[in-house]
Amino acid sequence: MLNNFSFKNPTKLIMGKGMIAHLSAEIPSDKKVMITFGGGSVKKHGIYEQVKDALKNHDTVEFWGIEPNPKIETLRKAIELGKEEKVDFLLAVGGGSVIDGTKLISAGLLYDGDAWDLVKKGCETETIPLGTVLTIPATGSEMNNGAVISCLETKEKYAFFSNGPKFSILDPEVTFSLPDYQIACGIADTFVHVLEQYLTKSGESRVMDRWAESILQTLVEIAPKIKENKKDYQNMADFMMCATMALNGFIAMGVSQDWATHMIGHEVTALTGLTHGHTLAIIMPGTMDVMRKQKYEKIMQLGSRVFGVVSGTHDFRINETIRKTRDFFNSLGLTTSLHEENINEDVISEIERRFNDRDVHLGEDGLVTGTIAKEILTKVL
Amino acid sequence: MLNNFSFKNPTKLIMGKGMIAHLSAEIPSDKKVMITFGGGSVKKHGIYEQVKDALKNHDTVEFWGIEPNPKIETLRKAIELGKEEKVDFLLAVGGGSVIDGTKLISAGLLYDGDAWDLVKKGCETETIPLGTVLTIPATGSEMNNGAVISCLETKEKYAFFSNGPKFSILDPEVTFSLPDYQIACGIADTFVHVLEQYLTKSGESRVMDRWAESILQTLVEIAPKIKENKKDYQNMADFMMCATMALNGFIAMGVSQDWATHMIGHEVTALTGLTHGHTLAIIMPGTMDVMRKQKYEKIMQLGSRVFGVVSGTHDFRINETIRKTRDFFNSLGLTTSLHEENINEDVISEIERRFNDRDVHLGEDGLVTGTIAKEILTKVL
Repeated sequence: MLNNFSFKNPTKLIMGKGMIAHLSAEIPSDKKVMITFGGGSVKKHGIYEQVKDALKNHDTVEFWGIEPNPKIETLRKAIELGKEEKVDFLLAVGGGSVIDGTKLISAGLLYDGDAWDLVKKGCETETIPLGTVLTIPATGSEMNNGAVISCLETKEKYAFFSNGPKFSILDPEVTFSLPDYQIACGIADTFVHVLEQYLTKSGESRVMDRWAESILQTLVEIAPKIKENKKDYQNMADFMMCATMALNGFIAMGVSQDWATHMIGHEVTALTGLTHGHTLAIIMPGTMDVMRKQKYEKIMQLGSRVFGVVSGTHDFRINETIRKTRDFFNSLGLTTSLHEENINEDVISEIERRFNDRDVHLGEDGLVTGTIAKEILTKVL
Repeated sequence: MLNNFSFKNPTKLIMGKGMIAHLSAEIPSDKKVMITFGGGSVKKHGIYEQVKDALKNHDTVEFWGIEPNPKIETLRKAIELGKEEKVDFLLAVGGGSVIDGTKLISAGLLYDGDAWDLVKKGCETETIPLGTVLTIPATGSEMNNGAVISCLETKEKYAFFSNGPKFSILDPEVTFSLPDYQIACGIADTFVHVLEQYLTKSGESRVMDRWAESILQTLVEIAPKIKENKKDYQNMADFMMCATMALNGFIAMGVSQDWATHMIGHEVTALTGLTHGHTLAIIMPGTMDVMRKQKYEKIMQLGSRVFGVVSGTHDFRINETIRKTRDFFNSLGLTTSLHEENINEDVISEIERRFNDRDVHLGEDGLVTGTIAKEILTKVL
């Protein structure tokens, strides 16, 4: 049965070719804007010039160097600069890491203490307004209020909730120059975002189920085409839309959510540095396998509606669906076992220890403890 | 290819059993609230008591009598009362007509002239805040910024765009007592809302296509179950969600839209009083038939993905899909030809005349003129 829910997503989505030129209309002209970036790839591909050109009549300051899995150590510097410069609008130009990091900056600029407090607290409602120009479809951060922030010093990585962007600009053409590995991880990330909100309990919402499957079916359809040619506008537009729609709340209304795979994945990234989407591709088939009893109706539905697994015993269909999920990640060019990435049992033990220390109970029914996380990771070792 | 688009929908959706009790938290306590209603059915079914109980600490005034196809003559009185009472928040409790009418009131309260000017103008951005408690799933007005207002005197009916509701409360249980005919018209209205945004050009967006089909598939699945038992929570929740998601912009991102059937339907209602959803059920198969050449790829896709029409010649598949669409409306208990509702050629001629007078060019390619509208209506005479 549908769970009671409340849904609101006020982010303005502006999508299409040439839309970066519309930036100036979205930011009041009297604002002092800090533009945040990752590394230099936006300069190589002309995105930087488009942004600067659109904002040529605005007062801007730039902050460079928000890294993948944005670090509190870096973000503290951005907050310092923003306070010095009396910034009152933020524009994140980058992928999920730049946007996530900038969400923390938007809260940190109005906070007197150390911004890592905000991450530990998990939420901050007072923020300065933020817009984004997305360059990597993957995390969905461009249209939600979540962010994941890491601490280099303690090797910790936590989710933090804030206000979502006022607006996000998505031009599919900016994806044409993405490295293959980033596209593969972005597709895997998107696929698993959907599964976290879908592969739970059955019979909660027919519409949400089908909307989730719509994104999965689309990803399965376009992934091989994108591998052939990553400069096809329509395919990249579909990919970009999938990534945003997978984590803006549109497929989460009134349905149970899991997120155990993500929590385990965050630990793997924190401990080894492996890219987020790649950790998910490795772990998700393990989660499906270990939680097959609890999730069996939804695994069967995934099999029949997305992978065409429609006959055979329940066990056969579940095994086939897990295999096809793993095959899909492999088809993107990603490995799907820990040892292929030189991750060993020490990492598994450390994650078990951390989860036990924090006494976590993850997943839609709170069944994923340190012990179960170890079981999942051992399945995909 | 995906069309460039901008999307924003800030309405907060609050859905579930018992959610009307949360009303007071959504309306600031210092507001003077005018609650608007249709006829007395909300009193019969306990909705009125729930609303009044939730707002017992608010200062409220009531306006009763917003009729189906809300009339400017009635809304002028509501605006007068609201100005007298210095109302600064509106709560619409009812179906699409009450909500649509209240959208005009929300603009009219801040306008000095006659509110019919606003309808003729088509849009008004300055409005006082509005919330809704939805009682009839159908129009989607609870989560969009559109409204359709009629003038009794001139037998005119026009769309008007304003601000959407701040929040809308959807409790599926309020639908348990709806008359069968209202449910049938609500399902038909929802189905055609989706077709207006789907049955246009192919290859624009895989995600939007599938999200549209998701709603259609769900309606086809639940309609016979609802006919059996309209007190099943899950089915009514799915119906309610379909109706809201069909017209809140979520399936319209970057895709072409038609709306010719709606524009013709509005004229039929204005001239004969036939319920909106019923006019659509009659007209849509005619539109599909007359526009079969322009829409053939999408009609085929509708056939294969929603109605299981997967083989045969193109012509056969298109005819089958039109037949199954008509059969679906009939299965709801609705007639699908004009003469069954005692509507004759005089009405068709009058609509042709009006369209020619206004020189309309409707549909995704502007091809539906007065002459084509006549052809469509003659097909379903």
